[in-house]
Amino acid sequence: MFSPVLAELIEAFGQLPSVGPKTAQRFAFYLLKQPQEATDRLATALKEAKAQMKACSQCHHWSSQDPCELCQNPKRNPQLLCVVEGPQDVYALERTHQFSGRYHVLGGLLSPLDGIGPSQLNVQTLLHRLPTQPAERAAMEVILALPPSTEGDTTSLYLHGVLQPLGVQVSRIAYGLPVGGDLDYADQLTLSRALEGRRLL
Amino acid sequence: MFSPVLAELIEAFGQLPSVGPKTAQRFAFYLLKQPQEATDRLATALKEAKAQMKACSQCHHWSSQDPCELCQNPKRNPQLLCVVEGPQDVYALERTHQFSGRYHVLGGLLSPLDGIGPSQLNVQTLLHRLPTQPAERAAMEVILALPPSTEGDTTSLYLHGVLQPLGVQVSRIAYGLPVGGDLDYADQLTLSRALEGRRLL
Repeated sequence: MFSPVLAELIEAFGQLPSVGPKTAQRFAFYLLKQPQEATDRLATALKEAKAQMKACSQCHHWSSQDPCELCQNPKRNPQLLCVVEGPQDVYALERTHQFSGRYHVLGGLLSPLDGIGPSQLNVQTLLHRLPTQPAERAAMEVILALPPSTEGDTTSLYLHGVLQPLGVQVSRIAYGLPVGGDLDYADQLTLSRALEGRRLL
Repeated sequence: MFSPVLAELIEAFGQLPSVGPKTAQRFAFYLLKQPQEATDRLATALKEAKAQMKACSQCHHWSSQDPCELCQNPKRNPQLLCVVEGPQDVYALERTHQFSGRYHVLGGLLSPLDGIGPSQLNVQTLLHRLPTQPAERAAMEVILALPPSTEGDTTSLYLHGVLQPLGVQVSRIAYGLPVGGDLDYADQLTLSRALEGRRLL
């Protein structure tokens, strides 16, 4: 029913996460109604971003530079290393303006059922980033900021097991009730985590 | 915080209807993780669709041909002309496989508050499509398939006023309870329309 070029545009939009055929159609129709510049802008932005954004060879975060801006920044504390699942988590943590250390992007989580083991993740490069001197290692803290899910917990446990013997301090971000969250509406797991993670006042 | 190329991609996605900054980020991150082909495909589809899809000079529907496939099709009844707001409505009606006539895309609805009058819509070209012979006009039916909204009703009323004196039959699609709809959940306006539009059995 649609012209082949229009059908192809709708299908191409349909690749995007949580975009079904209806939404893809809406995107395509909307852009066809807009001036040429709107379409050109998106097409150019796609090509440029894909061409320029590469994984940093040190931390595996996305950047148009290598090493990335964060790895190059001398103000960043090299003794604090925050391990995250993906680049979007780096952006999320940066938005807090609370973390002055560096990052390491794992590129996924351990998931034996999906065949994702430590060799599929950026674990070796993480170990290579640790200082060689035992004294320097002891002064270093690796913060595991992985999501509180089965895969996240498995990965945290695995990394703890690998990093602890190397003499670095390993910590984990706190899991509990989100700010503005209501006890009554929190799920049982979150509440269990909040209880487990209680701190003396 | 984002590299300029990434920020630009996120902003370009943010142009799309009902895509906020979070969704735009998700689209950008997803595509950056996919192989090059996924990005290229969308970029190419955008350029091709924009370059090839033009408004048909007769009915103003989008097509890569002029006149469009529907206007060229000799099996389409020229005595039935369905007036719709936009190209998406043509696709919606075509999906029903119930309409064998031709279409005329208005390109919008009358909206005096937004400064949209008859001259901003494809009204003149609609009048030019009517037959010149009175006998042929009398055999012609113009079906107004505009949305049941203030603008839609105003436009239907206006077109009825213009077309009726020219001797063509003017009809309007039925408004009422949608199939599968529940009286209890229908809004008051829909129910009022359903009552108004009742038919003797």
